[in-house]
Amino acid sequence: MTNMISTSVIDAENAKRQEALARDYETLGERFARRSIDIDAIKRKVAAYGVAVPSWGVGTGGTRFARFPGQGEPRNIFDKLEDCGVIQRLTRATPTVSLHIPWDKAADLAALKEKGASLGLGFDAMNSNTFSDAAGQAHSYKFGSLTHTDAATRRQAVDHNLECIEIGKALGSKALTVWIGDGSNFPGQSNFTRAFERYLDSMKAIYAALPDDWRVFTEHKMYEPAFYSTVVQDWGTNYMIAQELGPKAFCLVDLGHHAPNVNIEMIVARLIQFKKLGGFHFNDSKYGDDDLDTGSIDPYRLFLVFNELVDAETRAAEGFNPAHMLDQSHNVTDPIESLMVSATEVGRAYAQALLVDRRALDGYQQENDALMASETLKAAFRTDVEPILAMARLENGGAIAPVATYRASGYRARVAAERPAVAGGGGGIV
Amino acid sequence: MTNMISTSVIDAENAKRQEALARDYETLGERFARRSIDIDAIKRKVAAYGVAVPSWGVGTGGTRFARFPGQGEPRNIFDKLEDCGVIQRLTRATPTVSLHIPWDKAADLAALKEKGASLGLGFDAMNSNTFSDAAGQAHSYKFGSLTHTDAATRRQAVDHNLECIEIGKALGSKALTVWIGDGSNFPGQSNFTRAFERYLDSMKAIYAALPDDWRVFTEHKMYEPAFYSTVVQDWGTNYMIAQELGPKAFCLVDLGHHAPNVNIEMIVARLIQFKKLGGFHFNDSKYGDDDLDTGSIDPYRLFLVFNELVDAETRAAEGFNPAHMLDQSHNVTDPIESLMVSATEVGRAYAQALLVDRRALDGYQQENDALMASETLKAAFRTDVEPILAMARLENGGAIAPVATYRASGYRARVAAERPAVAGGGGGIV
Amino acid sequence: MTNMISTSVIDAENAKRQEALARDYETLGERFARRSIDIDAIKRKVAAYGVAVPSWGVGTGGTRFARFPGQGEPRNIFDKLEDCGVIQRLTRATPTVSLHIPWDKAADLAALKEKGASLGLGFDAMNSNTFSDAAGQAHSYKFGSLTHTDAATRRQAVDHNLECIEIGKALGSKALTVWIGDGSNFPGQSNFTRAFERYLDSMKAIYAALPDDWRVFTEHKMYEPAFYSTVVQDWGTNYMIAQELGPKAFCLVDLGHHAPNVNIEMIVARLIQFKKLGGFHFNDSKYGDDDLDTGSIDPYRLFLVFNELVDAETRAAEGFNPAHMLDQSHNVTDPIESLMVSATEVGRAYAQALLVDRRALDGYQQENDALMASETLKAAFRTDVEPILAMARLENGGAIAPVATYRASGYRARVAAERPAVAGGGGGIV
Amino acid sequence: MTNMISTSVIDAENAKRQEALARDYETLGERFARRSIDIDAIKRKVAAYGVAVPSWGVGTGGTRFARFPGQGEPRNIFDKLEDCGVIQRLTRATPTVSLHIPWDKAADLAALKEKGASLGLGFDAMNSNTFSDAAGQAHSYKFGSLTHTDAATRRQAVDHNLECIEIGKALGSKALTVWIGDGSNFPGQSNFTRAFERYLDSMKAIYAALPDDWRVFTEHKMYEPAFYSTVVQDWGTNYMIAQELGPKAFCLVDLGHHAPNVNIEMIVARLIQFKKLGGFHFNDSKYGDDDLDTGSIDPYRLFLVFNELVDAETRAAEGFNPAHMLDQSHNVTDPIESLMVSATEVGRAYAQALLVDRRALDGYQQENDALMASETLKAAFRTDVEPILAMARLENGGAIAPVATYRASGYRARVAAERPAVAGGGGGIV
Repeated sequence: MTNMISTSVIDAENAKRQEALARDYETLGERFARRSIDIDAIKRKVAAYGVAVPSWGVGTGGTRFARFPGQGEPRNIFDKLEDCGVIQRLTRATPTVSLHIPWDKAADLAALKEKGASLGLGFDAMNSNTFSDAAGQAHSYKFGSLTHTDAATRRQAVDHNLECIEIGKALGSKALTVWIGDGSNFPGQSNFTRAFERYLDSMKAIYAALPDDWRVFTEHKMYEPAFYSTVVQDWGTNYMIAQELGPKAFCLVDLGHHAPNVNIEMIVARLIQFKKLGGFHFNDSKYGDDDLDTGSIDPYRLFLVFNELVDAETRAAEGFNPAHMLDQSHNVTDPIESLMVSATEVGRAYAQALLVDRRALDGYQQENDALMASETLKAAFRTDVEPILAMARLENGGAIAPVATYRASGYRARVAAERPAVAGGGGGIV
Repeated sequence: MTNMISTSVIDAENAKRQEALARDYETLGERFARRSIDIDAIKRKVAAYGVAVPSWGVGTGGTRFARFPGQGEPRNIFDKLEDCGVIQRLTRATPTVSLHIPWDKAADLAALKEKGASLGLGFDAMNSNTFSDAAGQAHSYKFGSLTHTDAATRRQAVDHNLECIEIGKALGSKALTVWIGDGSNFPGQSNFTRAFERYLDSMKAIYAALPDDWRVFTEHKMYEPAFYSTVVQDWGTNYMIAQELGPKAFCLVDLGHHAPNVNIEMIVARLIQFKKLGGFHFNDSKYGDDDLDTGSIDPYRLFLVFNELVDAETRAAEGFNPAHMLDQSHNVTDPIESLMVSATEVGRAYAQALLVDRRALDGYQQENDALMASETLKAAFRTDVEPILAMARLENGGAIAPVATYRASGYRARVAAERPAVAGGGGGIV
Repeated sequence: MTNMISTSVIDAENAKRQEALARDYETLGERFARRSIDIDAIKRKVAAYGVAVPSWGVGTGGTRFARFPGQGEPRNIFDKLEDCGVIQRLTRATPTVSLHIPWDKAADLAALKEKGASLGLGFDAMNSNTFSDAAGQAHSYKFGSLTHTDAATRRQAVDHNLECIEIGKALGSKALTVWIGDGSNFPGQSNFTRAFERYLDSMKAIYAALPDDWRVFTEHKMYEPAFYSTVVQDWGTNYMIAQELGPKAFCLVDLGHHAPNVNIEMIVARLIQFKKLGGFHFNDSKYGDDDLDTGSIDPYRLFLVFNELVDAETRAAEGFNPAHMLDQSHNVTDPIESLMVSATEVGRAYAQALLVDRRALDGYQQENDALMASETLKAAFRTDVEPILAMARLENGGAIAPVATYRASGYRARVAAERPAVAGGGGGIV
Repeated sequence: MTNMISTSVIDAENAKRQEALARDYETLGERFARRSIDIDAIKRKVAAYGVAVPSWGVGTGGTRFARFPGQGEPRNIFDKLEDCGVIQRLTRATPTVSLHIPWDKAADLAALKEKGASLGLGFDAMNSNTFSDAAGQAHSYKFGSLTHTDAATRRQAVDHNLECIEIGKALGSKALTVWIGDGSNFPGQSNFTRAFERYLDSMKAIYAALPDDWRVFTEHKMYEPAFYSTVVQDWGTNYMIAQELGPKAFCLVDLGHHAPNVNIEMIVARLIQFKKLGGFHFNDSKYGDDDLDTGSIDPYRLFLVFNELVDAETRAAEGFNPAHMLDQSHNVTDPIESLMVSATEVGRAYAQALLVDRRALDGYQQENDALMASETLKAAFRTDVEPILAMARLENGGAIAPVATYRASGYRARVAAERPAVAGGGGGIV
């Protein structure tokens, strides 16, 4: 824990920015007051908002062509938790971590839970992995896992999910997220109908083992790693699954898992309406499942998603309780920095969505005043809410400027000194 | 009816090709025999297969930029029926016509029905139109129809659908197809949730009026004419609709109404599995809802759809009874020629799918022999089944070469002489 | 001219907002000062910036399915100019109008020019139309215009462009924009190579007639109205054209004319680098050539385009002189309102791009500090520059709030009283 | 070499199929004769046609999520050559191999060349690799190679390409293919213009070292591994490169490297017309750069590409001399089988394109008979040319049924016995 960022560094960095922040917050509050918006009320909501960090996100990601590790790559889940602790310490917006099994397996779960607690971190949804083969695994997932034509392979994949639940129970998690890569690369390779029947059978076995106070999130994805068909390919199939499984089953929406041009905020609205929205994997993308930093490519799209969430929150939509998590691949940045900025972006979209004048919007919608309805959303989106976000961080004990403070702290160099350098590699293709 | 194509023209054209056809059919049959396939059994299935023609398809289509009419454009539903009669006469593959109201309104429905009968044509699904304003209409659909925020406008749209049912009952139709353009062009313009609630309410009113032996098909489309959001945007929403409405409600799949790269045959498989596949609007596309001639851009995709249909047919999937219809826009061809060729393409895909060695395929799927599974489909697709299609047409009294026979008949020139020329125009943008 | 919006209306509306604006401008200036940015310098650049309005944009647009006209549709180019005058009067950001021939033909060009001058409007690029047939035209463009296989048809299309140049000369225009719909709907319909040879021949004839101080802009588009191939389908072909024609030929970029996911700002950069960027048709899109209001779907993308433009402006890139024009289809809004908001959005993107700290950005790029480079752009984009835009409008004699002022003026009702109502219609498909 | 497939196995397998093949060839020839096509002439062209195999293609590929190796993975370039030798032995359609450096580095180049000769294999284009870091490399390509902001890194990447040329010279290669992954993951990360300037500088240094009788192929790709911008992102940029470099520089087209919906055959036509088509990387794709087996997803698209190639060949287009290579990732099949089938698919598309009645097609194009033009292409595509391909293989000493013969030979099991099993892994993301 000696690596952790000290209060003195945070204080020193905050001191440089505090006066300007106070002034900006004040003048923004003045603007809000003209529109009868209480800036402190917005700030309180933002301050209470958190998004989970994925444990695998603190390591440098890669592509099938190559992976270029950075310095101080975390060696195990304990290192990862420390990195996540830095993110939470500076942003105060990431109070939980989501684990991936078997990558994050630990011999002593009690110690792991305690480590989290010591860093102020809880444990979010558990993630199973049946898209790659673990060392020593009896049956390969080359041709599928929960949907494999071989019953023993399916059983192995089910058992792995059951183990994830057990680990999660020990850590205080309350949800299991299931994403599989099962699909096919050739027309004819897989029988769509039978594969889906097998999927439902396997998931029913997992669902049956779910504790009463847990939820299961199934995640759809258009393609990759399968390139012709994917079993859980879109929200339509995902919705069928949630219906078939029962009241504890919900759909998870990863922003990068859709076909080109798809209106994602509309899918979010549909799932809310039919009480099956489980939560999100936030990231951004331009082409496919690019796993870029949240809000880095199309921030307005992220805002439009949050516009649906705040709308549901405002009208207290029945059964509305989505889980929020980041899921990104950090190939060219320090993962800690990317996750801090991304957590901020999620909070920004939330704050902007809170600023939408919903009464006015309702009126414009009712009157089909498309232009003013659009302007109502854009006025909220245009508002520079950074002073609100920064003030919330400051008052929660975090950093006004997380990235600058992190860089000033020298954390990366410190961990690089104790974590051995990792060799890069050629990705999956060689 | 004097315009109709005479038997003597057909006979003369067939005579030129009959010998070669007999030879090709024989040698193909010989190849089939080696694989223990009975070519005559395939031919009988193909001969019994039909696809509906859309009444609006026999007129020249256009884009928002322009429409360039051809010669002899049909003036009304009676002219359209005659054109459809030509298609059926030569191809023997299009025994029914699908009407669009109000475009095809007729004062004397009994006369219309009789006209159809005299041409050997029945009436397929009725199509309502609430995506454009008819002359003298009380409420405009500019801002929606079944989902409009104004109750009177919704009521008008519902009533129009009820009228379509009434007309259909008089003509012997057994289904209503509902496609609406409702949606929005701006984020914020429409509240997704309320719009869908209104949609479901309106459709329930229509569903309530459906005769016991009718079905209703709802049709999804990603975009156009709405360019930001569309109420029934994809098969996921469409499936929700069919579930909400009840056992007579089914999903219609138009091949051109999906996001780029979407695996359509998989959607077809899902809807079959969950007993909600209503039918098809066949066409082809490269970019959006291009409404190009069926099979003209990606014939293998069409085959893969039929591979699912034949699979369901073979295993007698419960509730499997899809309606087949062409839906194309003929901007640069003689619509009659395009529809004849497209009907043939649908039959070709069906014939090829019948040739798939399903027992072998099952085995390859079970063993994850992806390459041989793919080759099994491709071997069927590669088979040149034209002799089967042509022989089926010939034996049913049609033309071996429909387009050549049509051209030889002089039909277009004859109708051009009695149907006045139509002026082109600038499409929707001016 | 009695319809024009009076100074008193503008003054009254401005008076309601002036105090708040002054305060917001002051506090924003204070924030800028901390970063050593002179807010007045930014304002002066914004105030000097203008974007051309398309004459056809002031009429309600439509789709191939329907057109739903609004009230007070302009009857001719004089009405259109008045509407454009309103936009310029209130926004002070649209000093020129771009005409479309033959839609905007006028018997008395001198009167037309004078009309423009009286409204404070100049004439931007001329647009030819060979994508639809004008009444009485000798040869149809059904199968192409500048690339038609028939020489007489090509000649007619060339002559039409020459006429556009003549009209433009009389009006003071200095550029011709050529967009054609030529292409094909079927593989095989067109020989790609010969069609492009014919295109180049036709364009060379047009180029030869271009006055010395004119430029010609060719515009690419992926698809629509042709749905299999389009002759000028992308910027690669467009660049070839500009090279083949000569130094007065440049490429026009319409933001909605690209394949899904394409990085448009990169195309802009390439064309600047190779000195062939002619200008823009600004709009926004989610699916295809949706022609939605600029900045309404993805405002960050618009900013990224302007980031390239300001970068080129800053380094005084050789040959950099793009034309800026809006090109949108207003199907569900009052076109005047949409164009005012869109002109504002273009100015907003420009202002934000001016705020990019280019020295810092260069440093981050040099050091491969991807995160801080991204944050540098986003910090500029996040700045709410509305006070700058509004102050520029106010000081130029325009409206702080153009839409509210326009609505207060009653302009639409006034012109609706004198311009007859227009019937809607079924678009291009019927 | 003891692993190689014996003549007796081939003969035994051919013997089972020879009679049926002779009969099918005869009846197909009879059909051709009716249309005055000489089947033997087609066969001779097909028999003379070859496509290069990529050395890396004989190993099992993977994704960023996982790699699942097969049995008997080749350990080095000598093993790879043996696998390639099997492909050529059975298909007689893959006479050359394309190497990838440093993966295929060999201490003794003369031995390597001799090994190839002994297997009947020549050496096609050399491929450099600057998209991943080799062990011990001085400068990392994490932030780029030929376009890196650091001059030493660029120099290293240039030198690597020069080394590839040297190796190629020793082996008898006559071309260098350059594909780089350089680009960015964030807006702002890279300055598009400067990055491209650096690219051109680096490539000019490589071009300068090119022997007189060599060509250099540059390859564009829309995205991946960079997910926001890619330096050589499309054919437009690629064409600029070929122009800037000079007469020995050409554009390489990989079928999977384009934006969704792009008309690839049109790009091929443009590059032929402007004398810059260098060659192909054949594969197929449904979503992105899926690297699926050629012709497995959209065989008609492959045919349409070959339609352009045969058109150019027929009219002896100036400077037309493209290189043909497969480039696929075999994740779920035996790579040898996939490459044999894919080589056959390329030959099939070539044979079908040879069957197009080009005189008739010209006529239909001239008369704008879109339907018959389309039918002319489809008639050629529909022809089942398998008997021609098989007869060409047989007469060249190969196998009538390559996959069945390969399986009968037991080759995979034999090499699995001597090549150690390879562990799978988690791909690039962990």
